[in-house]
Amino acid sequence: MQKNRLEAFSDGVLAIVITIMVLELKVPHGNSLADLRPLLPVLLSYLLSFIYIGIYWNNHHHLLHAVRRVSGGIMWANLHLLFWLSLVPFVTAWIGENHSAQAPAAAYGAILLMAAIAYWILQKAIIAADGGDSLLAKAIGGDLKGNISPVLYLLAIAAAFYEPWISDAIYAAVAFIWLVPDRRIEKTLTDAGHPA
Amino acid sequence: MQKNRLEAFSDGVLAIVITIMVLELKVPHGNSLADLRPLLPVLLSYLLSFIYIGIYWNNHHHLLHAVRRVSGGIMWANLHLLFWLSLVPFVTAWIGENHSAQAPAAAYGAILLMAAIAYWILQKAIIAADGGDSLLAKAIGGDLKGNISPVLYLLAIAAAFYEPWISDAIYAAVAFIWLVPDRRIEKTLTDAGHPA
Amino acid sequence: MQKNRLEAFSDGVLAIVITIMVLELKVPHGNSLADLRPLLPVLLSYLLSFIYIGIYWNNHHHLLHAVRRVSGGIMWANLHLLFWLSLVPFVTAWIGENHSAQAPAAAYGAILLMAAIAYWILQKAIIAADGGDSLLAKAIGGDLKGNISPVLYLLAIAAAFYEPWISDAIYAAVAFIWLVPDRRIEKTLTDAGHPA
Amino acid sequence: MQKNRLEAFSDGVLAIVITIMVLELKVPHGNSLADLRPLLPVLLSYLLSFIYIGIYWNNHHHLLHAVRRVSGGIMWANLHLLFWLSLVPFVTAWIGENHSAQAPAAAYGAILLMAAIAYWILQKAIIAADGGDSLLAKAIGGDLKGNISPVLYLLAIAAAFYEPWISDAIYAAVAFIWLVPDRRIEKTLTDAGHPA
Repeated sequence: MQKNRLEAFSDGVLAIVITIMVLELKVPHGNSLADLRPLLPVLLSYLLSFIYIGIYWNNHHHLLHAVRRVSGGIMWANLHLLFWLSLVPFVTAWIGENHSAQAPAAAYGAILLMAAIAYWILQKAIIAADGGDSLLAKAIGGDLKGNISPVLYLLAIAAAFYEPWISDAIYAAVAFIWLVPDRRIEKTLTDAGHPA
Repeated sequence: MQKNRLEAFSDGVLAIVITIMVLELKVPHGNSLADLRPLLPVLLSYLLSFIYIGIYWNNHHHLLHAVRRVSGGIMWANLHLLFWLSLVPFVTAWIGENHSAQAPAAAYGAILLMAAIAYWILQKAIIAADGGDSLLAKAIGGDLKGNISPVLYLLAIAAAFYEPWISDAIYAAVAFIWLVPDRRIEKTLTDAGHPA
Repeated sequence: MQKNRLEAFSDGVLAIVITIMVLELKVPHGNSLADLRPLLPVLLSYLLSFIYIGIYWNNHHHLLHAVRRVSGGIMWANLHLLFWLSLVPFVTAWIGENHSAQAPAAAYGAILLMAAIAYWILQKAIIAADGGDSLLAKAIGGDLKGNISPVLYLLAIAAAFYEPWISDAIYAAVAFIWLVPDRRIEKTLTDAGHPA
Repeated sequence: MQKNRLEAFSDGVLAIVITIMVLELKVPHGNSLADLRPLLPVLLSYLLSFIYIGIYWNNHHHLLHAVRRVSGGIMWANLHLLFWLSLVPFVTAWIGENHSAQAPAAAYGAILLMAAIAYWILQKAIIAADGGDSLLAKAIGGDLKGNISPVLYLLAIAAAFYEPWISDAIYAAVAFIWLVPDRRIEKTLTDAGHPA
């Protein structure tokens, strides 16, 4: 039952995070289709973040599935993850309004990186609570996607100060990697639920 | 349990979508009843979208009832549907502020059309996960409402560029079709849960 | 299970309604305690509406407890109730910014009246779905509070055009009537869950 | 089941409270990293309040675990707690925009104090509903953290009118006290769930 409430609270926060981002899509003052043109980058950044939050929700779901005992550490590691994800609407709005600028592109990557680290900490907290023979520990071993994502985020942050569109391309590519099901490691991922 | 969380997350998103639309009803600066007059089209567009989200929630509810196994495809088809529905507050606000304009009326129909397509994809994903003898597959066969709604949306989008009020009338009519219970096909619909 | 989701969706909407009202409490530009003074009527109207939504949530909870079968009629009667309650933040903000004006005070009562009527319809829909020997039907019989509230709302709406503070006093009084537990009819109310 | 809905509603409200605070992080007009500098105090106050709401959610969770029967008193004591917590985003925004001002620092402490009192009342309501041999009553007996927090809030409120940064330091210290697990009384706390 304790686990139920952890899930319910996380679902609530993620549902709100994914939905309040749309409030950044300000209604245009004009009423022609051309007035939607300047909203396109905002819409695209919303779409990208929607997919990222969706990936996190999806994997969070699998990850908590593996939890047997909810410890205080798991509670706080989970809140820590939600904290970074709650900042996604902020960087999404910033990147949407300044889609070719350096700092917003780097900030977006920094939040994704912190969320990935928070997710990794949450995994460790679950394994620690489970004890030695954790199923999750084995599943995470060869987790290629989980290990490569932070490296790509770091690359994107660095690239932002040269060509911001490269960062955007990397963010889209990482989301794509996570979206496309990888048949060979699907079973492992289903158990481990490692996110972007 | 997996299904529970899919429902909980969808309920959360739909509850937020249906409620944040009311934030567009800006408090008037004046304090007389006449100051509410200009809000009437905004209130009407809110009412229409409230009914549409209500119809989707209602049918989504029935649809997930038919799910036996939550696959990755169902998860993403569901998020895809939520994405389009999350844009309803945006087009609702646009149509509310420009109730006799062409582009907003067409955009409203475009979002409804995309949501209807997303719902259709979600049905296919559920049938695919169920395998050959899907109950849902049979129920959808003669689904008149489900097939006619997209056609009416397309008509409304086209009509918007001539007479926007015709589009509004079509949107109201489609909502009405879905609201009025159709005794003959009620049982089929209850199983299939096809939305507007 | 169907009932669970109806409750979850209603809980979600009511939780959002009760929380977004606080967004009307705009952060003052100054930083002295005196800057909080003009917010007092906004805070008081927030408190009043918080209590009303709390009463509705509380009674809604008891009411759904009595539901045995969720019909389409119950679904829509419930959404109808949520629609009027979703307008509470709007009239709360209007009354908060114009606390001695006539039209806002009357509009506040009108929304409370519509919500009370919607609640009455929801009760009828539940009794209709239950069939002849509905426990709810018997409990509602001598429902003094439920019958007197709409009359008081009508009085308050009329009074608003003479002395708005009388309306405010009536709204506070009705909330008080519902808050104070009435030992004699508590058991009946617990079963019936009739709201303000 | 009644308890489930009380939890679900509380989770919903707390999830919204913790998430809407991020809306105060207004997207900067510029697009350089230097434009984030003025947001730092807003971000820090968000972080502090995020931790406080997290502590309350965590302890609320444990507290309701101890509930055997949900009385009307518990319902309203719970709503009373949610009311004060719903004002946290308001004082968080005020303190964020005026981080060295006296009144906001005092107001922040006042809301924390009222929330602590409301939590204490909720505990009493649960013990009253449980009857004489309440487990919770015993666990609360030597509750050092629960007794010292209100005293520290009062100190912080007083200090705000001399040196607001002292208040900020006290708020951070209280959050820290609650975050750091206290091995000796952990078991008691786990049962009692007393918050900051």
